[in-house]
Amino acid sequence: MDAPEIRLIPVYLEDEILPGDGLLQKLNAALRHQKIALAGNDVIVIKHKIISKAEGRVVRLESVRPRKSAVSWGRRYHVDARVIELSLRESKRIVRQKNGVLITETHYGFVCANSGVDASNVDGGKSAVLLPENSDRSAARLRSQIKKAFGISVAVIVSDSFGRPWREGLTEVAIGVAGIQPLHDYRGERDPHGYKLRATTEAVADELACAAGLVCGKLSRTPVCIVRGFSGRRGRGSARDLVRKKNDLFR
Amino acid sequence: MDAPEIRLIPVYLEDEILPGDGLLQKLNAALRHQKIALAGNDVIVIKHKIISKAEGRVVRLESVRPRKSAVSWGRRYHVDARVIELSLRESKRIVRQKNGVLITETHYGFVCANSGVDASNVDGGKSAVLLPENSDRSAARLRSQIKKAFGISVAVIVSDSFGRPWREGLTEVAIGVAGIQPLHDYRGERDPHGYKLRATTEAVADELACAAGLVCGKLSRTPVCIVRGFSGRRGRGSARDLVRKKNDLFR
Repeated sequence: MDAPEIRLIPVYLEDEILPGDGLLQKLNAALRHQKIALAGNDVIVIKHKIISKAEGRVVRLESVRPRKSAVSWGRRYHVDARVIELSLRESKRIVRQKNGVLITETHYGFVCANSGVDASNVDGGKSAVLLPENSDRSAARLRSQIKKAFGISVAVIVSDSFGRPWREGLTEVAIGVAGIQPLHDYRGERDPHGYKLRATTEAVADELACAAGLVCGKLSRTPVCIVRGFSGRRGRGSARDLVRKKNDLFR
Repeated sequence: MDAPEIRLIPVYLEDEILPGDGLLQKLNAALRHQKIALAGNDVIVIKHKIISKAEGRVVRLESVRPRKSAVSWGRRYHVDARVIELSLRESKRIVRQKNGVLITETHYGFVCANSGVDASNVDGGKSAVLLPENSDRSAARLRSQIKKAFGISVAVIVSDSFGRPWREGLTEVAIGVAGIQPLHDYRGERDPHGYKLRATTEAVADELACAAGLVCGKLSRTPVCIVRGFSGRRGRGSARDLVRKKNDLFR
């Protein structure tokens, strides 16, 4: 039952990632440069932005023609109407739109601000990055590439920073998952006093993403973190398991 | 800019914590037993439950007489009416009450299920534990005790597991903070491409709590984690800084 120590190892990617780039090659070069060897129980947490870039999910803002409602919203709240336009295109539903905040449900199912569309850490504001179309597939692809290249079964988590109701600040969340169960369900298990837990499901994939967020800076080129020593359950899983489907009182 | 590696070191407390117990003594004994020496930049993340126990915030359920609405709610959703009664007493406002879920705002200001009242990890279901009355004060007290005893300035975070809208599972959050700024505000800073960040405030205290959650099991006696190597900003802070006060669309 006792958990061992965990290490959070940041991985620096010096090069900019461009559409069509092979992430595995970049990652491999960075690991060699830092003299890090991957291990079988590692969890690789990777910011979605470099995956989106490699997958070509980057849009030149000058090519975007915002609809009227996006223009007036942008004017009213001093935000780029073209980013709002992209956010609306990337959404299947608006959850809330008020006081300059646009919360949407993305086509893939996440509820977040602006459908995850963001112009930071791209090219100085000329382009915006979208979320991967299917971030579970992105995670699975990297996992299988690592397996092929190194013969090692790691878990992969693709992360983004989401805001949340009631609490200030963003925290990292898992938007893509491969090789790990994103939820640890303690329900039915008993605590050291014999009390049966009834409401305790832990979102370990989100906690892993948060842990990685502590070493992956917003202003530096450290978009990858290796979490080493985590004893959680391996197995199949999807970031969609983390999306609340029923009994959500705030949709 | 480059972040160093971070270590998450679990601390096992073999003994049960009882009302009036000195946390510092228990922690000190555990650290000696595990041969861990605290270091100046350590962040000590501690589950609120052992703090609540030491502070006597434990209520025998047989002493609680639930109000009528708690009884009918409990009957309807198969939950203990006495826990609901305590949750209502610990709240200043009900945020949502529907489908068996009771979301309240606590007197101290947190929005969470059942005001944080919980019967697990106490004594097998005979008693419930309340949140500390002022969990920032609890954090500050432990920090100053550690400073006095060891001459070392650590940061202390008191944590609990909260659910959240839109996403399944609980994650750890900071409900008490001392010696660290809980939010890192990147607004106005520039990314490597010169783009000025405008909406990026990171809830580092919550991410630290989540990281600790990876080694602090729900079923084992590891209620303390030392986060070593975190390079975030020290300074004054309160867990109340993490509570969204304005522009919350979901209250």
